[in-house]
Amino acid sequence: MNTMEVLKDSFDNTDYQLAGHGPRNVKVLKQAFQEIDDEVKSDIYGTGAAINDFEDKMASFLGKEKAVFFPSGTMAQQIALRIWTDVKGSPKVAYHPLSHLEIHEEDGLKKLHGIETVLLTDKDSVIQLEDVKSMPADVACVLLELPQREIGGQLPDFETLTAISQYCRKKDIRLHLDGARILETLPYYQKSVGEICSLFDSVYISMYKGIGGIAGAVLAGDDDFIKNSKVWKKRHGGDLISLYPYIFTADYYFELRKDKMADYYEAAKELAAKYNSCTGIATLPEIPVSNMFHVHIDRPREQAAEMLAGVQRESGIGLSGYVREIDQGNCYFEVSLGDAYSDVPKEKIDTAFHLLDEKMKGE
Amino acid sequence: MNTMEVLKDSFDNTDYQLAGHGPRNVKVLKQAFQEIDDEVKSDIYGTGAAINDFEDKMASFLGKEKAVFFPSGTMAQQIALRIWTDVKGSPKVAYHPLSHLEIHEEDGLKKLHGIETVLLTDKDSVIQLEDVKSMPADVACVLLELPQREIGGQLPDFETLTAISQYCRKKDIRLHLDGARILETLPYYQKSVGEICSLFDSVYISMYKGIGGIAGAVLAGDDDFIKNSKVWKKRHGGDLISLYPYIFTADYYFELRKDKMADYYEAAKELAAKYNSCTGIATLPEIPVSNMFHVHIDRPREQAAEMLAGVQRESGIGLSGYVREIDQGNCYFEVSLGDAYSDVPKEKIDTAFHLLDEKMKGE
Repeated sequence: MNTMEVLKDSFDNTDYQLAGHGPRNVKVLKQAFQEIDDEVKSDIYGTGAAINDFEDKMASFLGKEKAVFFPSGTMAQQIALRIWTDVKGSPKVAYHPLSHLEIHEEDGLKKLHGIETVLLTDKDSVIQLEDVKSMPADVACVLLELPQREIGGQLPDFETLTAISQYCRKKDIRLHLDGARILETLPYYQKSVGEICSLFDSVYISMYKGIGGIAGAVLAGDDDFIKNSKVWKKRHGGDLISLYPYIFTADYYFELRKDKMADYYEAAKELAAKYNSCTGIATLPEIPVSNMFHVHIDRPREQAAEMLAGVQRESGIGLSGYVREIDQGNCYFEVSLGDAYSDVPKEKIDTAFHLLDEKMKGE
Repeated sequence: MNTMEVLKDSFDNTDYQLAGHGPRNVKVLKQAFQEIDDEVKSDIYGTGAAINDFEDKMASFLGKEKAVFFPSGTMAQQIALRIWTDVKGSPKVAYHPLSHLEIHEEDGLKKLHGIETVLLTDKDSVIQLEDVKSMPADVACVLLELPQREIGGQLPDFETLTAISQYCRKKDIRLHLDGARILETLPYYQKSVGEICSLFDSVYISMYKGIGGIAGAVLAGDDDFIKNSKVWKKRHGGDLISLYPYIFTADYYFELRKDKMADYYEAAKELAAKYNSCTGIATLPEIPVSNMFHVHIDRPREQAAEMLAGVQRESGIGLSGYVREIDQGNCYFEVSLGDAYSDVPKEKIDTAFHLLDEKMKGE
């Protein structure tokens, strides 16, 4: 095994993990289906109670006219942007340079839809009103990702969101919410999800981040937008004969976790403070504004991996299964808090962080 | 309820159905997962034993180098054709005028990939060598659908397939198999699936037709083709974090049904003969060449629907939940044989067909 495999292996063999909702295994599916009757009918190509009831529920929850269930957020968001560029008759959309669509989708937006992208702000910042004001006039749609995942889940303040929304409405620019983790921002904003979504023309929410379902996404907006998105869903190959394995699990974990986001947020702040108390380690942001943050380690990647593996083997506490290089002397990993954290004995956490600090000091 | 709803309702309330594998309900999922351990790990974005083991198994079964699991056939086939048009540097593909891609996918192939289509032969025929020989020289890829679903599942003879394959190889034209129902053709061709697939550069097979899984598709071909198709899978939004609910069910029902295709074929021939014995009813083809056929009724759609609803209510035997208009005086429905047929008491089937014939004579 190389160092990174050793790190992964040490993580997989810990008794407790600090982040997440527990392992992604078959139990996740079985637990959600335990109480569902054998005779309950499948959805059929986007029709039937199995899909439409959940779509209606999510539309109402998000404060939008209609919603549609998608197999993935990648598909949902490309389609949202395609619709808005067609409406405006301009192929330009604007978003953060580290948007999922820009760095994780093999350029599907450009290769499938011919959409051109305008990158707002620098990669270490969140988007401000000034960034939106200074973009080219023919941008059809602005996408805001809340929280901005690739920089540790940072957030603009709510006044900025409101100002961007007002500006876009005045200028006839559509505003789309990449709200993969939108529920995770509510405790910080102290707003309802409806209050946030009302600032946007269209909204996407993931079913397997904070909610912890198996896969899938919901896209919401007005009636015309959703009708149109169903046509594109078929074009993309996303209008499956049966999506119910994802829908019933999404619904189950949505009910289980939608009201626990404040717990995850508090846990994130607590855990970030523990990391920040260690020599040569800092979280981004320093004080989390959602359930997530990044842990920056002032060590080369290989060295950090060996050290983390050591802490995990000695403490039985899982911090991370990987580290990514920032530059030759620094690396980081991501932490998203979920159900797992509250199961970990506090004294074991303290032991792990004591070990981590010792190792950072010693090297 | 209007007449079509009455028909659907009468079908849903029958004791037995002649076609299919039984209801598409939650039991289909639960049965497949019954023996799978809670601790079995999910696939993660196309990696892990949960997906890779089944892909390897299907590649080997189909006689291809590699295979990839897709959420849908729509996605898999658009991608196959996109890859072959890129390889050739020509945006043209040729297929049957009633290909799934031409009539059921909202023109995804054209709208997402800018592919131009050449329609081979007339819509009532299967594609012959002459059709392929007479198409424009710059066609990058020919798609053959076996069996040709929209005309009752007709098939060209195996010599025609071989001749088309040889011609395409000579002319540097790629040949793609829309093999959604390819297993269902093996008893007629008396060939192995490998023998058929060896004629094609790429092959798609559905996991929920004859196999009867929940959803999903497998695309197979050489190593380069599959590597490339995984990139496009991500672009389409098909590289889900977890596809295992579809994969494990596909595998379960594949093992359960792959060797039962001859039974379904024999049942189809038997059932078609019963339809053909009724006044004013004929199947297409007259003698099925797979597990499927169409039932043509020499009556206007509304009248046929009322009559079928009557037969279903009186006999408790489900023939069809719908009828589609051909012209003002004729209509049809599709029949695909599966596990359900062998559960139906023979005397009840005879009663139903006696009733059907009586009603056709009486009206």
